Amino acid sequence: MKNYTRVADITNLNELVQSAIELKKEPYALQALGKNKTLVMLFFNPSLRTRLSTEKAALHLGMHVITMNISSDGWILEFEDGSIMENTAAEHVKEAAQVVSQYADVIAVRAFAQLKNQQDDYEEKVIKAFIKYASVPILSLESATGHPLQALADAITIKEHLSSPKPKVVLTWAPHPKALPQAVANSFVEMMQKMDVELVITHPKGYELSPDIVKESRVEYDQDKAFEQADFVYAKNWSAFESYGKVLSVDRNWTVTAAKMEKTNSAKFMHCLPVRRNVVVEDAVLDSDYSVVIDQANNRTYAAQVVLSKILGA
Amino acid sequence: MKNYTRVADITNLNELVQSAIELKKEPYALQALGKNKTLVMLFFNPSLRTRLSTEKAALHLGMHVITMNISSDGWILEFEDGSIMENTAAEHVKEAAQVVSQYADVIAVRAFAQLKNQQDDYEEKVIKAFIKYASVPILSLESATGHPLQALADAITIKEHLSSPKPKVVLTWAPHPKALPQAVANSFVEMMQKMDVELVITHPKGYELSPDIVKESRVEYDQDKAFEQADFVYAKNWSAFESYGKVLSVDRNWTVTAAKMEKTNSAKFMHCLPVRRNVVVEDAVLDSDYSVVIDQANNRTYAAQVVLSKILGA
Amino acid sequence: MKNYTRVADITNLNELVQSAIELKKEPYALQALGKNKTLVMLFFNPSLRTRLSTEKAALHLGMHVITMNISSDGWILEFEDGSIMENTAAEHVKEAAQVVSQYADVIAVRAFAQLKNQQDDYEEKVIKAFIKYASVPILSLESATGHPLQALADAITIKEHLSSPKPKVVLTWAPHPKALPQAVANSFVEMMQKMDVELVITHPKGYELSPDIVKESRVEYDQDKAFEQADFVYAKNWSAFESYGKVLSVDRNWTVTAAKMEKTNSAKFMHCLPVRRNVVVEDAVLDSDYSVVIDQANNRTYAAQVVLSKILGA
Repeated sequence: MKNYTRVADITNLNELVQSAIELKKEPYALQALGKNKTLVMLFFNPSLRTRLSTEKAALHLGMHVITMNISSDGWILEFEDGSIMENTAAEHVKEAAQVVSQYADVIAVRAFAQLKNQQDDYEEKVIKAFIKYASVPILSLESATGHPLQALADAITIKEHLSSPKPKVVLTWAPHPKALPQAVANSFVEMMQKMDVELVITHPKGYELSPDIVKESRVEYDQDKAFEQADFVYAKNWSAFESYGKVLSVDRNWTVTAAKMEKTNSAKFMHCLPVRRNVVVEDAVLDSDYSVVIDQANNRTYAAQVVLSKILGA
Repeated sequence: MKNYTRVADITNLNELVQSAIELKKEPYALQALGKNKTLVMLFFNPSLRTRLSTEKAALHLGMHVITMNISSDGWILEFEDGSIMENTAAEHVKEAAQVVSQYADVIAVRAFAQLKNQQDDYEEKVIKAFIKYASVPILSLESATGHPLQALADAITIKEHLSSPKPKVVLTWAPHPKALPQAVANSFVEMMQKMDVELVITHPKGYELSPDIVKESRVEYDQDKAFEQADFVYAKNWSAFESYGKVLSVDRNWTVTAAKMEKTNSAKFMHCLPVRRNVVVEDAVLDSDYSVVIDQANNRTYAAQVVLSKILGA
Repeated sequence: MKNYTRVADITNLNELVQSAIELKKEPYALQALGKNKTLVMLFFNPSLRTRLSTEKAALHLGMHVITMNISSDGWILEFEDGSIMENTAAEHVKEAAQVVSQYADVIAVRAFAQLKNQQDDYEEKVIKAFIKYASVPILSLESATGHPLQALADAITIKEHLSSPKPKVVLTWAPHPKALPQAVANSFVEMMQKMDVELVITHPKGYELSPDIVKESRVEYDQDKAFEQADFVYAKNWSAFESYGKVLSVDRNWTVTAAKMEKTNSAKFMHCLPVRRNVVVEDAVLDSDYSVVIDQANNRTYAAQVVLSKILGA
C-alpha cells in the first residue's frame, strides 16, 4: 500500500479486515516492523480518537511518533500554485511536504473541509498536495471529503458484530447544531459499497450526499421505513452537499431514539464519535447494550495499525 | 493501588515514601515494569513540573507517554448527566473516558477548580467522572480540590530533610494577585495529618480552608507566632473557601521574608512552584540555602514514579 | 561541548561538519549514546523544521524527547532579576530552568527576538538565563540574535555542494511583508567567517547588520554586482538593525529571480525556510535543480545530531 487517503486505496478489503482482527488479538506481533521508523502526524484540526488511536497503532508496530498541531505549532501553509505569498501563509506546502518527508517514514494529515466552497473541498487540495509533494507515504486522518480510517474501523466493527450473511446497514442523518463535513458519511458509504451489505441512506430532503459517492445506493427519505429490519444503524450528522455547508434542519424528529431502534432487527447502534448526546442520539441508545460506539473507537487502533503495517510492507 | 486521585488513596505512606527514595537512587530499576504500557496525560490546564516530571517518571518505568491538551487539541467535554448537548461541548466524558481507556493503561488528568461555585468544585465532577467511566486507573495531576502527587513529593522532601523526630510544619498563606485553587493547601494538610508532625496552618481571617480538610489541625492567625520554632515553612496562596474563590487580601505583610524565617528553627522553606517572587516570598528566601523548592520539584518525579509503579502492580 | 547557543561555541568546525556527514550515512550508528537520556525542547515560538529535525536527531541517538510550547502549555516566564511578580508572569526563569534541568539531560530552547528594543534582544536575556540557571547543557533552537543550528546545517550543505576550493558565497537580503529577526543572517555570517569562503553581504542601505557581526566582511549594496560569479546565493529577509526591527523596504527588485541567478557561476540557491514564494524568491528559482533548500532542511537533522552527540560526550 502506497498511501491511504481514500477508501478506494484498499484493494482487498476482506484480507485487510481479517488482518486487523488478527492484530487485535496480538497487538505487538509486528513490533519489529516499525523499528527506527517515524510517523509524523500533522493536525490542522482537533482530534481525540484519531490522535490517540493512530499513535497507539504506531507504538504497537514499534514506530516512533511525532505529533504536531501544524497551524499553531508551525506555520500557516499556502496551497495555491504560483501565489505571491504576502499574506498570512508563511510556508508553501511544496516545501513543507518535501521537508517533513525527510524527517518521517510516513506522514499522517488531518485537514477538515472548510465548508465554504464545494469545489475547493471536493478537489481535496490539502491531502492531494501532500501526496504530490511528499516523498513518503501519506495517511489521511480525515480529509475534506473522506475519513477512510474511520470507515475501515467501521468495517471491522460490522464484521465483528455480523449476525446474518448480508446485513441491512442504515446510515441515518441526525440533527446537530453546527455545520459538519460529509467526510465520515462519504467514506462509510464507499466502504459499505465494497461490502456484502444492503445499504440504505436516510436523511431529510436537501441532505443528499454527492451523487459521485452515493451512486446506485438506496436513499430513503422516511427514517422509520429505513430502520425496518435494520441490522446496523449508523447515525451521523452532515451539512448539506448541494446547498454546500448549510445547516438546513435541526429537526429532533431525526434524533435516534430507543423507540426507533425497536423497529429494527435488534440493530447495533454505531457512531464515529464525538457525539452530542440527546441531539444526535438519545442517552437510552448510547447507554444500551446494543450500542457499539466504544468498540468502533477501539477498532480505530487496529484500522490504523493494519494500514500502517501494509504501508511499512507487511 | 487502583487510582491515585486523593491523599486518602494512600494506605501505607511510610512504605510509599521509602520506595520513592529507593527509586530516586536507581531510577531505571523498574524499567521493565512499564514495557508496552501507555500513560495518556490529559491536560485541561497549563503545567510545567507536573507534565515533565510525570512523563519522566513514566519513562523511568519504561512506559510510553501520550500528552494531550484536551480542550484545545481535542473536544470540549460535557460532564452533566442527561444534558442536551447543543452548546459548546462536542463530547461527553462518558464516551471520552471509555474511549481513552482503550488506548491507555493509565489515564492522568489535570483539571483545576473553576472557583465559581464551591459545591461544583468540591464535588470533583471531572476527576470523578473519569474514575466512573474509565476502565483503567486514574491518576490526578491536580484536580479541583486536591493535588495529591504534589503532597506526596512534599512528604518525600520533608522525610529527606528531617532533623527532628516530630518536626513543626507551618503552612502559611501568602499574597497573590490572582485567585488560586485550594488544591495544593488541601492535599498538603491531608498529607501532614498522615505524618508524625506538628502542623500549624496560618492565614488571615477569611482564608479558612474547608473544615472537612482542616479537622483538628491547629490554625493560628498570627503568622509571627506560627513561625516560632518551625522546622518547615510551606508558603502557598489560596483563594477563600467560605467567600468562595475570592481574593480577600493581597497584604504583603504575609509575604515570607528572610527576617521572618529567622524566627524559625532554621526552617526549610517549601513551595510547590510556580512561585511569584517578591509577592509570595522574597528573593532572599528563595535564593537561600534553606530553600528546598527545587528539591521538591525534583521529588515530583519520584512521587509520580512510585505511584505509577504501584498502579502497575509493583 | 557544554552548550551550543552560538556559532562561537564551535571549536573545530571542519571536524564537526565531517562528523555530521558521517552520521548522515549511518544515522543510527550512535543509538546507544542517548539511552535513558532526555531532551526537553521548550518552544516560545512556532517551529516546523527545528522541532521535527531536532527530535529526529535525538531519536537517532536513542534519546527520549519531550516537547513543550512553554508559553501556552506551561507558565509565562519572568526574566528580570528582582522583579515583583504581580503581573502576567507566573514563574521566574530561575526556578523554571533549575526545575527543568532535573527532568532533562539537555534543554533546547527557541526564543525569538521581540524586535522592540535592540539592546534587550542583543543581550540575549532568555537564552543566557537558561545557560545561567540550568544545570544541564543548553541547545539554542534559535535565540533573539542567532540560529546556530541553522548555520551549521548551512555549513554542511555548502561543504556537500562545494565545487571550488574557495567559493564565493553571497548572503542577500530579500523583501518580506513582516518584520523578521536578524538571527539567521547573523549566524550565517559568523559561520561563513569561520569557513574558507569569499563572503559578500548585499542589502539595501539601512539594512546593515550589527557591526559586531559583520566585522571585516564585504558589504555590497548593488545586488547585481554581488551576484557576479557567485557559487552560493543565500536569500534571507531581516528587519533593520539600526532602525531596530523596522521594515524599511519591501522592494521586489530585491526578490531573487531566475534572471539574476543567471549572472552567477551556476550558483546553488539557499534559504533556511519557511520561505514566502514570489516575494523572497521566484518559483522558478525554488523549483529549479540548483535550489538546495530541501537539502539544507535535511541537514538540520545532522547538524542537531552531531551537536547533541558532542554534548552527550561523543
